[in-house]
Amino acid sequence: MPKKDTALKIIPLGGLDGIGKNMTAFEYGDDMVLVDAGLMFPEDDQPGIDLILPDYTYVLENEHKLRGIVITHGHEDHTGALPYLLMDLTRKVPIYAAKLTLGMIAGKLEEHNIRQPKFREVQDGSNVTLGALNLTFFAMTHSIPGALGVFMNTPAGTLIHTGDFKLDQTPIDGRRPNYQAICKFGALGVDLLLADSTNATRPGFTQSEAAVGPNLRHIIKNAKGRVFVASFSSHIHRLQQVCDASVAVGRKVVVTGRSMVNNTKVARELGYLNIADEDIIDAFDVDRIDDDKIVVLCTGSQGEPLSALARMANGEHKSLSITANDTVIISATPVPGNEKSVQGIINSLSKIGCDIYDKSRALVHVSGHGSQEELKLMLAMVKPRNFMPVHGEACHLRAHAELAVKMGVPEKNIFVLDNGDTLEMRHGKVRRGRAVESGVVYVDGGNVTDANPVVIRDRQKLAQDGVVSVTVAISGKRKNVSAVEVTCRGISFGSDEELMEEARATVRAQADKLANSDGASIDSLRRNVRNSVSNLFWNRTHTRPMVIPVVLEV
Amino acid sequence: MPKKDTALKIIPLGGLDGIGKNMTAFEYGDDMVLVDAGLMFPEDDQPGIDLILPDYTYVLENEHKLRGIVITHGHEDHTGALPYLLMDLTRKVPIYAAKLTLGMIAGKLEEHNIRQPKFREVQDGSNVTLGALNLTFFAMTHSIPGALGVFMNTPAGTLIHTGDFKLDQTPIDGRRPNYQAICKFGALGVDLLLADSTNATRPGFTQSEAAVGPNLRHIIKNAKGRVFVASFSSHIHRLQQVCDASVAVGRKVVVTGRSMVNNTKVARELGYLNIADEDIIDAFDVDRIDDDKIVVLCTGSQGEPLSALARMANGEHKSLSITANDTVIISATPVPGNEKSVQGIINSLSKIGCDIYDKSRALVHVSGHGSQEELKLMLAMVKPRNFMPVHGEACHLRAHAELAVKMGVPEKNIFVLDNGDTLEMRHGKVRRGRAVESGVVYVDGGNVTDANPVVIRDRQKLAQDGVVSVTVAISGKRKNVSAVEVTCRGISFGSDEELMEEARATVRAQADKLANSDGASIDSLRRNVRNSVSNLFWNRTHTRPMVIPVVLEV
Repeated sequence: MPKKDTALKIIPLGGLDGIGKNMTAFEYGDDMVLVDAGLMFPEDDQPGIDLILPDYTYVLENEHKLRGIVITHGHEDHTGALPYLLMDLTRKVPIYAAKLTLGMIAGKLEEHNIRQPKFREVQDGSNVTLGALNLTFFAMTHSIPGALGVFMNTPAGTLIHTGDFKLDQTPIDGRRPNYQAICKFGALGVDLLLADSTNATRPGFTQSEAAVGPNLRHIIKNAKGRVFVASFSSHIHRLQQVCDASVAVGRKVVVTGRSMVNNTKVARELGYLNIADEDIIDAFDVDRIDDDKIVVLCTGSQGEPLSALARMANGEHKSLSITANDTVIISATPVPGNEKSVQGIINSLSKIGCDIYDKSRALVHVSGHGSQEELKLMLAMVKPRNFMPVHGEACHLRAHAELAVKMGVPEKNIFVLDNGDTLEMRHGKVRRGRAVESGVVYVDGGNVTDANPVVIRDRQKLAQDGVVSVTVAISGKRKNVSAVEVTCRGISFGSDEELMEEARATVRAQADKLANSDGASIDSLRRNVRNSVSNLFWNRTHTRPMVIPVVLEV
Repeated sequence: MPKKDTALKIIPLGGLDGIGKNMTAFEYGDDMVLVDAGLMFPEDDQPGIDLILPDYTYVLENEHKLRGIVITHGHEDHTGALPYLLMDLTRKVPIYAAKLTLGMIAGKLEEHNIRQPKFREVQDGSNVTLGALNLTFFAMTHSIPGALGVFMNTPAGTLIHTGDFKLDQTPIDGRRPNYQAICKFGALGVDLLLADSTNATRPGFTQSEAAVGPNLRHIIKNAKGRVFVASFSSHIHRLQQVCDASVAVGRKVVVTGRSMVNNTKVARELGYLNIADEDIIDAFDVDRIDDDKIVVLCTGSQGEPLSALARMANGEHKSLSITANDTVIISATPVPGNEKSVQGIINSLSKIGCDIYDKSRALVHVSGHGSQEELKLMLAMVKPRNFMPVHGEACHLRAHAELAVKMGVPEKNIFVLDNGDTLEMRHGKVRRGRAVESGVVYVDGGNVTDANPVVIRDRQKLAQDGVVSVTVAISGKRKNVSAVEVTCRGISFGSDEELMEEARATVRAQADKLANSDGASIDSLRRNVRNSVSNLFWNRTHTRPMVIPVVLEV
């Protein structure tokens, strides 16, 4: 039985580009609930890293407290760490999420051979008690169906976690944000609001998903040849609108790209995506249908080099190609960092000469996150006593905090957290808690590894200037040099024989010095070889390849 | 004496991201003129490359024809290859450019120890005869003063090269585009127009540089603490407006960042930037002046990690720091590919809590390139018989070509070139010419090197999965293994002793196999070592580090 002044701890984990985005732990006494278990994608300065996970050591150390994992929606930055976490937990913990979210997670877990997870389907209005924490879910709208927010009632106070959201009055499936529930919580009293900050710097109200449909239909209707639509494969409502427009103008839909095939399959099975079997055809069957009767739904809206759109744009797709007579719609916006890749695809398409539509030419995309007016509306409905902006980079968190000030939340009750920061709530009052270890771990091949800065730095260095492997074999008591080898990789002047000979001579000279000195060690020879070869390369080429010195005593 | 039907060859050189941008050769008989000599910057997938130059082998092979080099303006993508080219030429070739352009080039050449270049200052209206080619320069407006376009009169026909331009009716220095000259050429007849396509996808008219001033002044006037303005250091008119606003509200200007210091110095000396000595103070003297009497002009508008703004934002600048009381104006737009770096700086500044202005919040930047209405106006004034869009990615070239069609240029007379393509003009008629070798060369440390794809690929591989150096020494007739060493760099599991032992055992096994077989060569042992270690790592870790096998016979 927890004491009366036990605190509810709010512990964001991970989150390089958005605190409280990938994973947040809520802990009261011996009860802990996790909201989301997502992953991050590596940046350009993290070569060789495949994925980045929140460091959830804290969760593992407190596994006995973990009553459940809540997943607010099916995007990878909220679900992708789940397989790794489940493999690390020693017992099965229930996972609470909407039907589509669970459907998408199921596929991921299968890929990792995780059998029979404890799925618990929840929906708008569901109420779940997890130890001392009572959770009520409410419908939200986002760029994926089934998004949920959570109201949490605890002995230490109440809070709302919005999950990712926009406030869409005309969502494609008619499932609006549950304003009534949100306002009811607001009337009851919400001690802390954690809200999505992604678009906190954008004025106005994000347009409804429904605004996109008529434009898609107009373009598809007037296209001469095939129409290719690239979109996020999880954006089921966007796909629905493409399907609806295609069917309405008498075109068949072809689906290509692995995640597009997977997600449309799951969404159709679960009733989230509605299109008749006869209106969907296989990519290998397109050639028996006229071009102006085809719409291709494909991956690649972010310019991913191996995606279906990239392959088609570069003439490398196994069954589909794009001609000057065709139309390509990029129904998405580049995620920050992907601008160049998307531009690269647009350039390839420009060379083909097809008609290209992106957001700059027609309203073929709207954001899934609420803009400033929606964020203010959320603050007005919830009337939180304390506020913690989540899910955004530093500039978004700050902008959201400024909106909260304008909405009357006292500045001292607004908490902009950095990685490792935590909050504590007692009797409805919030203050900063003790900092926790809250880094990230890297998935590198089959290996989940600590964020080892030396490895990353070495890779950057290798990429920068290449590598020289220098081997010297010394033999006998006198430590005579019996062989020297110098091998280069990733070096522009690797074929400069004169330089290589100089390098070998340098190594020989170092080794001879050792032979003629008393007491000098192999270690110091190794060091001297590295330094002298490194300096030689710098003097001759103004680059500093990594030198790997190997000294063999034979 | 060239024959009557000698062609004027138009040969774009280099240009990964914009044909005819960095360097174009115009050759008639034994006379050749080069327009621009610029460089490119490497992409993320070109690790370790410092700069990229057009491959100007063609120019060197025809050096005896080269009558002059024209530089249209002082930006690096039009001037940066000049030092390398001049070092490769065996004689001094005159360089024609405006005063400021020459001033900026002079600094670059000095850095490369190039003495006494043959500078020939030209300006609006200058006429120069270079062999059979007669050049008339005309004033253009761009994001750097002194931009020039060129009208070329040749025995094979006439052409205009616009250089980079916008059509600014109210340029800060009052030096408007010379519409009268352009229209006169149009009336005389222009057989071919080469025009800047950078903004060919943007509707409307680019705003005047003068539109920025009042906003800068408003922000600077109302700022509480110090104001930091980051801008391109070559954008002298922007700097002028910052200086004017600062002086007008009684603030002193501090200049920081190497290129900002250099360019303001040159521009002041040559009379392009006007600010009294007493209004400029040294960075080390700021502490004796009140914060609200200071404006800092700095580099870093592209988020460059070592720039003044980045250092200040991260608390690493030697003399200046930014506090919550200060204001930062990013008076620029991220060049494609730099979005993330700029966002990183904005995040750092958000954490400091200072006031931040960028283009999304106030009109603190306008483009230096003309939008669609300006491009159409240019086409209307010149009335070219043939058109070649230059200076833009494939999508911009295509958009510009479409504008030309709308403006009445026959489609068959529009030439969208790809790398290596050339044009030929005879009797005013233009057609495609013979393709030339037109690649790029890389500057890698002190080394100007061919674009060696193996080196780049090796570096990418090294960055991806690291490197394993495997050394085995074999001795005697029986080729017994006398030593094995395995060394890892950039590998997450480099400290996995068990794996290292497995690797050594694998190598030993391969070497033993050799010892027991007749006729097997050292080469095949090397190959077997590489393959077996590579497979071991793949099986154990699902990564494929580069394996460097070294076999020593001792």
